[in-house]
Amino acid sequence: MQQVEFFVNEEAVSVTARLNDQSFELPALWLRERCQDEQNLDQITQQRLFDPHQLDANVSLDSIRKISDGIYQLMFSDGYQGDYDFNEFRADFDTYDGAPTPQPWTANFDKSKFYVDYVELNDEQGLLKALEKFLTYGVLIVNEIPNEANMVLDVAEKFGHVRETNFGRSFEVYTRPDYIDLSSKSVPLGPHTDNPYRDPMPGIQLLHCIKNETSGGLSTLVDSLSVLAQLKSENPEGYQLLNTVPIRYRHIDKSIELIERRTMIESDVSGRVTGISYSPRLDYLPLLPQHQLAVFHRARQRLGELLNSSDYEWKFKLEPGQLQMFHNTRVLHGRTGFDASEGLRHLQGAYIDLDAPKGRYKAIKRQLGL
Amino acid sequence: MQQVEFFVNEEAVSVTARLNDQSFELPALWLRERCQDEQNLDQITQQRLFDPHQLDANVSLDSIRKISDGIYQLMFSDGYQGDYDFNEFRADFDTYDGAPTPQPWTANFDKSKFYVDYVELNDEQGLLKALEKFLTYGVLIVNEIPNEANMVLDVAEKFGHVRETNFGRSFEVYTRPDYIDLSSKSVPLGPHTDNPYRDPMPGIQLLHCIKNETSGGLSTLVDSLSVLAQLKSENPEGYQLLNTVPIRYRHIDKSIELIERRTMIESDVSGRVTGISYSPRLDYLPLLPQHQLAVFHRARQRLGELLNSSDYEWKFKLEPGQLQMFHNTRVLHGRTGFDASEGLRHLQGAYIDLDAPKGRYKAIKRQLGL
Repeated sequence: MQQVEFFVNEEAVSVTARLNDQSFELPALWLRERCQDEQNLDQITQQRLFDPHQLDANVSLDSIRKISDGIYQLMFSDGYQGDYDFNEFRADFDTYDGAPTPQPWTANFDKSKFYVDYVELNDEQGLLKALEKFLTYGVLIVNEIPNEANMVLDVAEKFGHVRETNFGRSFEVYTRPDYIDLSSKSVPLGPHTDNPYRDPMPGIQLLHCIKNETSGGLSTLVDSLSVLAQLKSENPEGYQLLNTVPIRYRHIDKSIELIERRTMIESDVSGRVTGISYSPRLDYLPLLPQHQLAVFHRARQRLGELLNSSDYEWKFKLEPGQLQMFHNTRVLHGRTGFDASEGLRHLQGAYIDLDAPKGRYKAIKRQLGL
Repeated sequence: MQQVEFFVNEEAVSVTARLNDQSFELPALWLRERCQDEQNLDQITQQRLFDPHQLDANVSLDSIRKISDGIYQLMFSDGYQGDYDFNEFRADFDTYDGAPTPQPWTANFDKSKFYVDYVELNDEQGLLKALEKFLTYGVLIVNEIPNEANMVLDVAEKFGHVRETNFGRSFEVYTRPDYIDLSSKSVPLGPHTDNPYRDPMPGIQLLHCIKNETSGGLSTLVDSLSVLAQLKSENPEGYQLLNTVPIRYRHIDKSIELIERRTMIESDVSGRVTGISYSPRLDYLPLLPQHQLAVFHRARQRLGELLNSSDYEWKFKLEPGQLQMFHNTRVLHGRTGFDASEGLRHLQGAYIDLDAPKGRYKAIKRQLGL
């Protein structure tokens, strides 16, 4: 969390927050809305017991009295007077809202940081560690998963709620030597994001390896945050276009025709980049003037090169009994080709939403008093 | 769909699209990416069989030859030559991507347009009609639902996939006279959006009335698109702030602490307003300079007034056997107070995602050749 300091001037009746060498005067209305007494705020759920939309827009702060360190009594022009613990305001200045700060990684990063054992997920300390890894790196590898049916759903439910799609609650990635043309190899899949044509896109994907008797079919993962930092430094103009011009993604099958428009580089409301939607078989170039379109296209091309570069891509064998869980738009996934005639290959997948891991991380920290 | 026309100049080797009195030259790269032959495009899934990110950014269009009405053979500098049906480009210019155009409604709008009977949902024509109503008005009321368990899930699955939350696949809204203090009435709930603290927010909510023996507890619905048009005309400066300054929403319970930042007025990537997140007990004013904050607050206050005004709010009794389905951020829901001592009140709810109804609407239209 960033260090914010509060300065109270009792004489001038003003409260100032200082963050990263910037000062912000805290308006009376802002303070009035954040009253903390138990008549106005449920002390357990932190849910308000009044409607702050009805407050007087012109409310002013009439007086401030220090009660103890960090605790002040504030008195307002609408007659409200209450004690404020200024520590409660820290959350407002925490731009990651209590979640760990994402740490971008590249191919030569120490990948042992991505691993946990399945048994660790059964107690709160272990689950907290796993959540911290996932939220920091956008990826988690779970080892030593018991050899039972539907473990992908079991792991998914430790982190969130299963997100059902047209594939059902979970889906199978399955190849058997006798099902396919023995002469053909199964083609590699470059790094991509799943379902850019959906609204909302799946936030997190889990893939559990049940069997892999082929020597190929390695998993690949790449952190788009690292790739995007590079792209931005090489080609700021192209980066800007990918970040602002929406393109169209389309998926058609018998029962559904999904079209969604989104920018290739995605940002959150604070303007921070959160990931990309990259799916070369499903996207459509936007209609831009010739020159801009070429800039857009070259940036998209370079993005693909970087995503596939050995500087950024982590290539590893997901062994039977292991599961990879990754942030669908931050960490792109793919797989190398394999020879399906070598044997069975069976993965089971599922999706969960983005918010639950963040929310559980914070709840466990609170419970453990961390 | 908007009327786009294409103009081909064989001599100048150029293709122009004309839409709403605006002309757009279609760049060669844009056309090259949209090649339609069966070697390059799967004719059923419309999925590309090549990687267009690899195309030459400088590709040019060398010649155009008319084959028949609307069909042209294009020849490019990279050696590619293929037939193009220009009708396929219409989808690019359809800003609603094949879905019906939303029609805002107010309190005195003819509400009979919102109703369908349950049996109609069992054939494609009836389902298409229901989908069209829902996508146009953001709300659908389903009549004559069979008196069986979990019908809310049955209806949900006709329109999409059930979105599981911390309440499970479905949730119960249940009051029994003997469960509550008989002296107390159950308080009204003003119009609000559900779960603004979630990422993603639930897209669509379904509420099935199983029993209602109380005389109050009327359902209320209000179309935020109408309310926002009014707010924008009254107070463009405040509207602009609500549309661009993110605020913080928070929800805390024992197992999860969810915080999400989003703007109160939400727009899609094309800048079109799609709805709001309005939840007066869970939101926090942003940190803005005093004057701007007052403007923001007054706009939020006025938004609340309009949402609760009888000019916009539709108040009706959802009878046992009826279900209301509404777009969570476009159409806000609430209920009037009721006297729980009068009898049982039991509703069952569920959520689905936004994209499936749009996607099914398009697929059924395609199947029926409409």
